[in-house]
Amino acid sequence: MRELAFQDYYPDNTAHCYGCGRLNDHGIQLKSFWEGEISIARYTPKPYHIAIPGFVYGGLLASLIDCHGTGTAAAAAYRAQGRDMASEPPLRYVTGSLHVDYLKPTPLGIELELRGKVLGLTDRKMSVKIDLFAGDQLTVKGEVIAVKMPDNLIK
Amino acid sequence: MRELAFQDYYPDNTAHCYGCGRLNDHGIQLKSFWEGEISIARYTPKPYHIAIPGFVYGGLLASLIDCHGTGTAAAAAYRAQGRDMASEPPLRYVTGSLHVDYLKPTPLGIELELRGKVLGLTDRKMSVKIDLFAGDQLTVKGEVIAVKMPDNLIK
Repeated sequence: MRELAFQDYYPDNTAHCYGCGRLNDHGIQLKSFWEGEISIARYTPKPYHIAIPGFVYGGLLASLIDCHGTGTAAAAAYRAQGRDMASEPPLRYVTGSLHVDYLKPTPLGIELELRGKVLGLTDRKMSVKIDLFAGDQLTVKGEVIAVKMPDNLIK
Repeated sequence: MRELAFQDYYPDNTAHCYGCGRLNDHGIQLKSFWEGEISIARYTPKPYHIAIPGFVYGGLLASLIDCHGTGTAAAAAYRAQGRDMASEPPLRYVTGSLHVDYLKPTPLGIELELRGKVLGLTDRKMSVKIDLFAGDQLTVKGEVIAVKMPDNLIK
């Protein structure tokens, strides 16, 4: 059986996100997984996700970091409670702030790998640091401050 | 005659950007203009640019801030040199870092307005602060550190 990604556990009413919602046909549908203490997501940008010829658009890279960050925060919250992600009640996180440092241009045309690590951890707020690699090159570093989604945000 | 946006002056070889390239049919094609000392861009997200129902995806908002920031930096560089944006040689900026604070959820379905202001200004590096409004609500604050594009980045 295929391993489920963090995002595969999102309840239907929070699974429309353009970056990571499995129910968004137009979106990126990012998938994140644990590899030990590190969360991993892989994505190959489309040819039109271009900045200048040969390189990936920085807004897409920010989007990947954003969704991998909130997904990692949710998965870490379940872990901290010793719960499976399929268990109730659901735990979801939204982005409070996003910081991205573009260390060098990211080449277009190859699979990218995001490696996330939860640094701060309270029930309500987490810092997720993310390194983005193109092959063995670290091209972008990001940080997401993820905040527990208020219940009243879901309609 | 329609006023040209900053991005309409980009040379063809730097006009493919997913966020603001006029030659990218899949992209957002953001357009930025001066209104006095403030740079303005307006964009209405598509229905699929959703985060959770009713609200705009944060990665799209980061993308708008990114491209409005680099566009504003380029336009400010021409201004500082007392040059028209159609004059040679072209001045283009790339994103060194991007910071976005999501103050509150941004409602989906209405036109958004970005208001940019150049804070630091050297020939090589600028800070552009950007406020993003949904109607009269300030929902997101961003900062782009824009760096002059090295000539050797263009193929």
